Amino acid sequence: MDDILLMLPGPTTVAPRVLKATSDNIVNHRSAIFGEIFTETTELMSEIFKTKNQSYLITGSGTSAMEAAIANILNPNDKILNVVGGKFGQRFMHIANEMGADTQELTVEWGDAVSPEQIKEALDKDENIKAVTVVHNETSTGVSAPIEEIAKVMKNYDALFIVDAVSSLGGDRVEVDKFGIDICVTGSQKCLAAPPGMAAITLSEDAWKVIDKVDSKTYYLDMKKYKKAGSGTPPETPYTPSVSLIYALAEALKIIKEEGLENRIARHEQAAKATRNAIKALNLELFPKEEVSSTTVTAVKMPKGITDSDFRGTMRNKYKVELAGGQDHLKGNIFRIGHMGNISYKQLAITFSAMEMTLKGLGFNIDMGASLAAVNEAYL
Amino acid sequence: MDDILLMLPGPTTVAPRVLKATSDNIVNHRSAIFGEIFTETTELMSEIFKTKNQSYLITGSGTSAMEAAIANILNPNDKILNVVGGKFGQRFMHIANEMGADTQELTVEWGDAVSPEQIKEALDKDENIKAVTVVHNETSTGVSAPIEEIAKVMKNYDALFIVDAVSSLGGDRVEVDKFGIDICVTGSQKCLAAPPGMAAITLSEDAWKVIDKVDSKTYYLDMKKYKKAGSGTPPETPYTPSVSLIYALAEALKIIKEEGLENRIARHEQAAKATRNAIKALNLELFPKEEVSSTTVTAVKMPKGITDSDFRGTMRNKYKVELAGGQDHLKGNIFRIGHMGNISYKQLAITFSAMEMTLKGLGFNIDMGASLAAVNEAYL
Repeated sequence: MDDILLMLPGPTTVAPRVLKATSDNIVNHRSAIFGEIFTETTELMSEIFKTKNQSYLITGSGTSAMEAAIANILNPNDKILNVVGGKFGQRFMHIANEMGADTQELTVEWGDAVSPEQIKEALDKDENIKAVTVVHNETSTGVSAPIEEIAKVMKNYDALFIVDAVSSLGGDRVEVDKFGIDICVTGSQKCLAAPPGMAAITLSEDAWKVIDKVDSKTYYLDMKKYKKAGSGTPPETPYTPSVSLIYALAEALKIIKEEGLENRIARHEQAAKATRNAIKALNLELFPKEEVSSTTVTAVKMPKGITDSDFRGTMRNKYKVELAGGQDHLKGNIFRIGHMGNISYKQLAITFSAMEMTLKGLGFNIDMGASLAAVNEAYL
Repeated sequence: MDDILLMLPGPTTVAPRVLKATSDNIVNHRSAIFGEIFTETTELMSEIFKTKNQSYLITGSGTSAMEAAIANILNPNDKILNVVGGKFGQRFMHIANEMGADTQELTVEWGDAVSPEQIKEALDKDENIKAVTVVHNETSTGVSAPIEEIAKVMKNYDALFIVDAVSSLGGDRVEVDKFGIDICVTGSQKCLAAPPGMAAITLSEDAWKVIDKVDSKTYYLDMKKYKKAGSGTPPETPYTPSVSLIYALAEALKIIKEEGLENRIARHEQAAKATRNAIKALNLELFPKEEVSSTTVTAVKMPKGITDSDFRGTMRNKYKVELAGGQDHLKGNIFRIGHMGNISYKQLAITFSAMEMTLKGLGFNIDMGASLAAVNEAYL
């Protein structure tokens, strides 16, 4: 199982020193020694979120943090505007529905991004919208939403701005305080390059004003309990946390700090550009509009005449490179290359070598070396 | 941090081979290779639960599984009977309250266990009770509830029987199918001796009949989604799971199988007996009634004249043995010795050596060696 190169939009390859941290001895999560590790980790999280506010760690998937974002701000029938242009936008709306919200769907074509004007229009039309959910990086379609520009629009309205940065934080620009994001959530296994199973959330003062007046819809994800436990001595989580994964997350965040967040984002941008150029060099077609394409995952239309299992199956079984497929109605119609976390020219060289051989083997007339040349040129 | 002996009612010391598994490379949680690991782990979980039904793994604390047990069976204002004789009984009731249940508290004195007759009486009084929650091993008071006898009573009623076996499964008798438990939940970091951060749940056919007619109160813990994903090809979780902790849990469950569940329970019973005898040999007083005392954690009244921080602080800082304190109104009034997971005479020899020296050092007139003799006699 060690020899498969994961080119997925999460989980990403985890560095040996992070894996090593995962296997440290377990300490009591209600002890001063853990309090120190916990504080260090949440402070590092806030640095990555670029916020002066507290970050909270949730033992759960990114989805648990999405639910926390919704469950803590809702009174029954509150209106939530959900931008839906892919699977994770849908998920945010489904969560809001299950929590009893009156959800308003702002539909965006899969492969395109919402515009700030569309948000403005929706907010102008209904002054009772309590919050807007936007998926920054729609992993299912490889689209990046213009959250900085949306945030500028949102400053003129009372609605809370909730951003899913699960597959962007640490790989694309997310500046929570500067942009003016009220609630931002992320997951451990994407650009942060830690093992899966931890989520993080940060909340603005405006968000807390709402939360303090609302009964949380869940007990496990009740952020008031996280706040209370997090401000105790020692600081801790309300329920037993995943100690091993906090060790790992701390180590992964230290690596980000060592690299520098700006350098890391530039590295992701370079990988994205190299990937798109390589795809074009193979005469394959990007799924999203290029101007809104993601910095961390590239979605590509499946070449005509081959099946997903032929293409990705060969990539995986013969060449040991694992790509992601399409989800829901895109199943079989696209494939996705994750270039997040510890991504460099090396993984792209392997991936496009494999892709060229796979396509050639499946009978495509490939200009051998063209995609590899495109990668090299993007990196030179 | 390596030299502290954890004698806590969770987290427990994790074996090196389990820690090692935690640091294995991350694989795609939507791949066939992970499907195999996942299936193996859930099958092992069902063996430990002693059920023919499917077990589900939740990336979360034990509390997340408690919430899953409640959130999936409730329609608004359904009546739930909550047995409350400690912090975790309370937690079950609080969860049910937050989920909109009409909760009926069956109050039990902290330190005592509920009797089957009390359950019968409560069910006879109100035929609309939809479910009964019982904490098998009340970690906060060191009390074990007679779940087998309660289950016999419950067979005559329609109400679902929900058991929190978080700190008992793998260390005390929990036979889900034979007893007739409808929903049973557990956590990774107690008697299973895996790292914290994973929970497991199993549900009977009767439970599913109820669940199928109910809208889950949470998205993250919606068991219908776990069932659907778990029966796919490959079987998987609905949301990204903690892959590292599933590796660890699988390894920990294999260790249980190698030991044999019956042997493991006998080992816990022996440790509990040795602990109680050692406590009595020091003229200290058990907190719970001895006949209902737990097999996995022993709660002891704080000796008069010393503070919790003197006693547990000395144990921890001078002798490197970490005990648990009391919770809520028992804070400072009791201490608790966890003897779960990889417990043998060795840890008890260290613990009681430390306790004798601590008490002597704090001015108590201790019959030096008496508690150690009691441990040895229980093991001989």
